Formats: sequence, structure tokens, C-alpha cells
Amino acid sequence: MKAHLTRRYRFSASHRLHNAEMSDDENRATYGKCNNPYGHGHNYALEVTVSGAVDPATGMVCNLVDLDSCVETEVLSRYHLENLNTRQEFAVTIPTTENLCIQIFDILHRRFPHAHLERVRLEETMMNSFEYAGGQELIS
Amino acid sequence: MKAHLTRRYRFSASHRLHNAEMSDDENRATYGKCNNPYGHGHNYALEVTVSGAVDPATGMVCNLVDLDSCVETEVLSRYHLENLNTRQEFAVTIPTTENLCIQIFDILHRRFPHAHLERVRLEETMMNSFEYAGGQELIS
Amino acid sequence: MKAHLTRRYRFSASHRLHNAEMSDDENRATYGKCNNPYGHGHNYALEVTVSGAVDPATGMVCNLVDLDSCVETEVLSRYHLENLNTRQEFAVTIPTTENLCIQIFDILHRRFPHAHLERVRLEETMMNSFEYAGGQELIS
Amino acid sequence: MKAHLTRRYRFSASHRLHNAEMSDDENRATYGKCNNPYGHGHNYALEVTVSGAVDPATGMVCNLVDLDSCVETEVLSRYHLENLNTRQEFAVTIPTTENLCIQIFDILHRRFPHAHLERVRLEETMMNSFEYAGGQELIS
Amino acid sequence: MKAHLTRRYRFSASHRLHNAEMSDDENRATYGKCNNPYGHGHNYALEVTVSGAVDPATGMVCNLVDLDSCVETEVLSRYHLENLNTRQEFAVTIPTTENLCIQIFDILHRRFPHAHLERVRLEETMMNSFEYAGGQELIS
Amino acid sequence: MKAHLTRRYRFSASHRLHNAEMSDDENRATYGKCNNPYGHGHNYALEVTVSGAVDPATGMVCNLVDLDSCVETEVLSRYHLENLNTRQEFAVTIPTTENLCIQIFDILHRRFPHAHLERVRLEETMMNSFEYAGGQELIS
Repeated sequence: MKAHLTRRYRFSASHRLHNAEMSDDENRATYGKCNNPYGHGHNYALEVTVSGAVDPATGMVCNLVDLDSCVETEVLSRYHLENLNTRQEFAVTIPTTENLCIQIFDILHRRFPHAHLERVRLEETMMNSFEYAGGQELIS
Repeated sequence: MKAHLTRRYRFSASHRLHNAEMSDDENRATYGKCNNPYGHGHNYALEVTVSGAVDPATGMVCNLVDLDSCVETEVLSRYHLENLNTRQEFAVTIPTTENLCIQIFDILHRRFPHAHLERVRLEETMMNSFEYAGGQELIS
Repeated sequence: MKAHLTRRYRFSASHRLHNAEMSDDENRATYGKCNNPYGHGHNYALEVTVSGAVDPATGMVCNLVDLDSCVETEVLSRYHLENLNTRQEFAVTIPTTENLCIQIFDILHRRFPHAHLERVRLEETMMNSFEYAGGQELIS
Repeated sequence: MKAHLTRRYRFSASHRLHNAEMSDDENRATYGKCNNPYGHGHNYALEVTVSGAVDPATGMVCNLVDLDSCVETEVLSRYHLENLNTRQEFAVTIPTTENLCIQIFDILHRRFPHAHLERVRLEETMMNSFEYAGGQELIS
Repeated sequence: MKAHLTRRYRFSASHRLHNAEMSDDENRATYGKCNNPYGHGHNYALEVTVSGAVDPATGMVCNLVDLDSCVETEVLSRYHLENLNTRQEFAVTIPTTENLCIQIFDILHRRFPHAHLERVRLEETMMNSFEYAGGQELIS
Repeated sequence: MKAHLTRRYRFSASHRLHNAEMSDDENRATYGKCNNPYGHGHNYALEVTVSGAVDPATGMVCNLVDLDSCVETEVLSRYHLENLNTRQEFAVTIPTTENLCIQIFDILHRRFPHAHLERVRLEETMMNSFEYAGGQELIS
């Protein structure tokens, strides 16, 4: 009797999309205005989905207090109101929302022990979102 | 040629999270303010997803009139503007949104014959939602 | 050079609509299922609008940290995850969303000194909202 | 390391639900007011989900410029501000949202080469949506 | 002690923007694709705002049951799932959302006696909305 | 017979809140993490409200094509995917959302001749928004 719980969080950050190994022309062709040297930013919406049996004693998959505490410490305090390009994990990796989504999945996969992490979904704008469910084939 | 149809409904109800077999301290530690004896409430959003072949004669997976009628009779009239703790199905089972979601899935699974019930998703607030797809492993 | 700032908050509470001076039939005729003795609940969205000149030194109407702190202390901690009928201010006054909106306006009008309180808007559901702008005629 | 990208588009169109092989009574019984001879309309929201490995050079599943260009040319210019019943693909097929969703999936499946098309989701209103993931069993 | 109540409704309809007194070229220049002879459609969201003193006996500006009943009878049953151009009130008047908004205001102004009608707001899409507050200067 | 038209636009930008005339401690006390030297960013939603009589010939307050063209040229191309601090108008003025809102109002007030500009509303996040209606007292 497995159920899924999805919790939504928000944070704001800036980034510049730029690959130092590509020429200026290639960067501009690939990223358009997102390549401007001073960066731009987004309000990201983060959805974390975990799954598990519903505990008969509590009626819960896991306690939201634990999930909120983990996401606050491990994700929001790291990225909220920051420039992603200044983070060490994006020193080489391009801070696209795809890569940020994978990064957050990997952090929570290692740090949240109270339920199974199913997937992370990250909205960059109301028009774009990205999902990642780990290294193996995502069935969804 | 199978398609999925998701229909969204809304209802408002109140509940108190409290396990009679736990001490007051345990209840407070588990549920926080949600354990207050007078209860609190939510506007729930319910999403029902059914699937099936698209009928070539009608162009439909199933008729929304039938789905609406079933959800109205079996779910909304039972829970809308009610206190969940006063319902017999939550006399022992804690009326968390996880358990309410499972309960609604089980009701619709038994009562809606016009398409395959895929899953029930229940939003407690804009920040929390729960999904249940039946007793077997949920692949999603 | 006056600007308006609107900040949005959320809380969940339960209430029962019941006037002790009316008969059971009158209560049921007036409030329908909202009169059920065990109550029901909502996720309320609260929008607080304040106005003032933009301070040239800070570029702000007022600091959101101050507004958040006041609303948290004076409003959210009082109503979030509570049953409104148990509050002294609703011992006689019916805890409709109209009256809750007026109550919140009056609290913030007395307690928030950093900008002019223009109005309070309270959403009971996605379909209903209420606005109050103080005892004089509301021009809007 | 496969990720999913979902992009959201909007268009407005009108349709009439009517099966020429059914009697007037059958049409009315099946479609209700949606059978009125002059049609009615919707603001559709279209979500296109594609998947693939994240390209290490660009940090992207595919370039949104390519996806937008394909959807604009192949879908939006065809349906936006049009009457679906006047389109050849709906000369016989009923232009329900189920069938429109399948049609859009088939168009994009043939015309978008830059990533794997996972599914198409089409919202007819805020209350109804449809998903299609191709001719084989949809696992979701 | 006047408060405002806003209630939100939804309906779907189609229209064609065309002025019979203008040439085809003028119509196309004015309305673009919205002039196509077969029409297109929208999901309209209608917000009705009324105001009044809060009745101390009920705690309400007016009873939502009365407002819903009036809007259902006078507006929704008239326009939902219809083609606006077939209505007599749009035989000459162009059924733009501006004119539809004014029409709905005038209907409700004449037919809803239980509170003061402040304004009608009509969303044509998530990107466009229109407001009308009667024949005199709208202060808002 | 004056009506209001509100059109919604979106853009993404980054900014740093920092007043060069304040000490580092004052900046940090005033702006918190928004003062970090590398900036952060937002998805802004911009609502432009104009008013006027509805033209009997067209049924419109003004043509949305004209409004879109003006906002695209004068506002979106200037700020979308940019760092606000690099703009000359924010060389001295702090690029808070209050000041950005006033700046956009002033631009549109000078450049849009087809209807009366009533106000500009700018959402920084789903929780914060700002409105400006010109140099005189804003009645709303």
C-alpha cells in the first residue's frame, strides 16, 4: 500500500549559461540572451516526490517536518537568493535547470533517509519544467 | 490507443490528526498544531485519472457526465463541508490526506465502471499533494 | 510618488457558521451545510496591501521583513491550524470570512506602523474572496 | 542520466461535438450542449514532454528554440484561433480533446527529431485534461 | 463597515470578431485571425464583485446561494457552451470581451437586488482581462 | 462607458540590492541575502492596465497588437534575460521591484498613445507584487 507525497518549495536564483570551451559565437548560438555576461534569474519551483507505505500509527508516508528540514538545510539555504555560477558544483557543469535538477536529486538521494526519493521536478518558469528520477531509466 | 483523462474537483473539510493510542506528548510531537483538539481544515483539490481506449463513435475515453455523477454521489456529498473525524471510515484510521486519498481511490475503484481508474491525487494545500494508484506497486 | 505593495500569506483553519440567536431551521436555511455542528475548514490566502512613498535610500515602500514579522506574530500564529470558533473574538461574532477579513484588517491597522494599510483581501476558496479597507467608504 | 523536459503552450480554438452517423437525439444525449450547431470554444493548454540524456556540452536535453519552432509551425499555426471542425483531420474524426491530443502527439512524433517524445498533455479547461503517450500501453 | 465580496465563475463560448460595415481587408487588419469566418473560442473566467455592509445577524454581505442562482440563470445558462454571435444582443454589437463584460454588468445590475454591484471582470485568457463598473467614470 | 483592459506579460531578470552610500553592514541589515554581490533573479509578471471608451466600430478599448508591440519594444527587449544593475536607469537608483515598477510606468506613460495608462503592477514572486499609478495619489 504505497503512496506518493509531493511537496512544493520555492527559491530565487540567478545564472549565466556559458560554456568556457565554446567560442563566443557558439555560446550565443546555443544560449541566446541567456549567455549575457551579467546573468539573469528565475523564481524556481521545486517539487520533491517521495514514496513509501503509509505508517498505520501516524497515517503518513513520512513527516513533512523532516522533509522540510532536509530541503531547507540541503537545498534552499544553498541556492535561494544566490548566483548559481558561483557555486563549486557549477564551476564546470553548466547551471542549466536540467543540471540543477539532477544536482538537487543527488543531494536529496544522499541526505533524506525517511522515504524513497522518487523524483525531483524543477520549474524554471511557468512554461518550462524538468524532471529527474535518478541514473536508471525513468519510467513515467 | 489508450489515453488518460484527468478531472479535477474541489471540496472543503476539517480534520484533527490524533492517534488515541499515543500519549498527548507523542501526538503533539507527531502532528504539531494539527493535533489541536478543535481541528482545522483545508480546501482539498481532488484529481481523478482514468484511462482507456478512445471510443471511435464518441471520441471519448468515458463520458464526463458519468464520472462527475459518480464523484459527486460517492465522494463530494460525503466529505464536502464535513469534519472527517466524524466519518465511520476514520473512526480508527487517522484522517491524514494520505489515508483520505487511499479511501477515495478505494471508493472509486469499486463504484466507477466506465473506465480504468489509474490513480487519485489529492492536494491538501498548494504545497502538499498525495497520490495513490492501488495496492500494487505504483509505477510513476 | 506613492506605490502599493501587496504580500500574500496562507493559513488553514476550520469554522462553523452558526448564530445562537437563530433557530436550527433558520441556521440551516442561512448557512446550509456550513452549519454542520462539527465544522469544516479552508486554506485561506491572505493578501495585505500597504502603500507609501518609495524610500530613496532603500528603494522600498517598507521592509518585507517587518511586514512578515508582524503578520506572523499577530495573524498567522493566532489562526493557522486553529478552529476559529474557539477564539474569543468569534465568541459572538460569526466567523464568516467577511468577519475574519475585518478582524485581520483591524489587527494590522493597530499593529503595523511602517506603512499605510490600504486593504486586506482574504480568499476562502479559489472561487470566493473578500476585501475590507476600513470603516470609511471603500473606493475601489 | 535521462531527464524529462516539459514545455507549456497555449492556443484558443472552437469545436462542435457531433457524430454525423448518430441521430440528433443520440448526439444530444452524448454531448449535451457541446452538440449545439454553432460550436463553442476553449483556451487549450498544451504540455509537450520530451526526454533524453543531458548533453554535457550544453547542459540541455534539447534546445527549447528548436522545440518552440516545431510546435509553432506544426501545431499552433494550425489550430490557434481556428474552428477545429473545419480541419481535414477532423472531417470524420470527432474533434474531442482526446482526439486532438492524439493528433498533436502524432504530428510531433513525426516532426520533432531532437529528443524522444514522451507524451502530450492537453488541458481543455482547468478541470479537464488528457494525456497520450503513443500507440503502445501508456505506463504512468 | 462596507466589505467587498468577489465570486469567480467559468464558462466556455466561441465568437467571431467581424464588423459587417467594414471591408474584408479592414476586418482582417483589425481582428487578424480572430476574424476567421468559422470562429474560435475561449474559457472565460468571470469575477463578480458586490459590496455592502456585513449583516450582523449572518456575518455576510449577501448570501452566495442568491448570487450563484442569479449568475447561473442570467449569465451562465445564456453563454456557456454557446456561440456568442448567435445571440440577439450581439447581432450588431461586436462580441469582443469588452462588450461581453459590459453586457454581463448590465444584466446583473438589473437583476441582482441583494447587494450593490461594484464591477464585473472578465478574463478571456490568462493574459487578457477586462473590467467594467458601469456608465460613470470607473475609479479603480 | 469606460472599460479597463489588463494585459499580462512575463520576463526574467537578475538584480542585486545594494546602496553604494550605505556601509556593508547597513546593506546587509537592509537587504539580507538580496545584497549578495553576485545577485539573484526572478521571473517577473507584468500587468499593464489601460482604460478608455469602447470604440463602437471595433468593440475594443485599444488593439492588443499595438499594446503588445509597445511593451515588447520598450520593456521586454530591455529587461528580459538581463541583469538590471547593468542598466543606466539603475546606475544610482536601487533596482528594487518598486523602482522597476515605477520605471516601467514612466516608459509606457510616455510611449503608449492608444489608451490611458491606469497602472502597472509587477509581481516579483507569487507572494509579492507592487503597483504604481503615476505621480499623483493612487486611488485604488
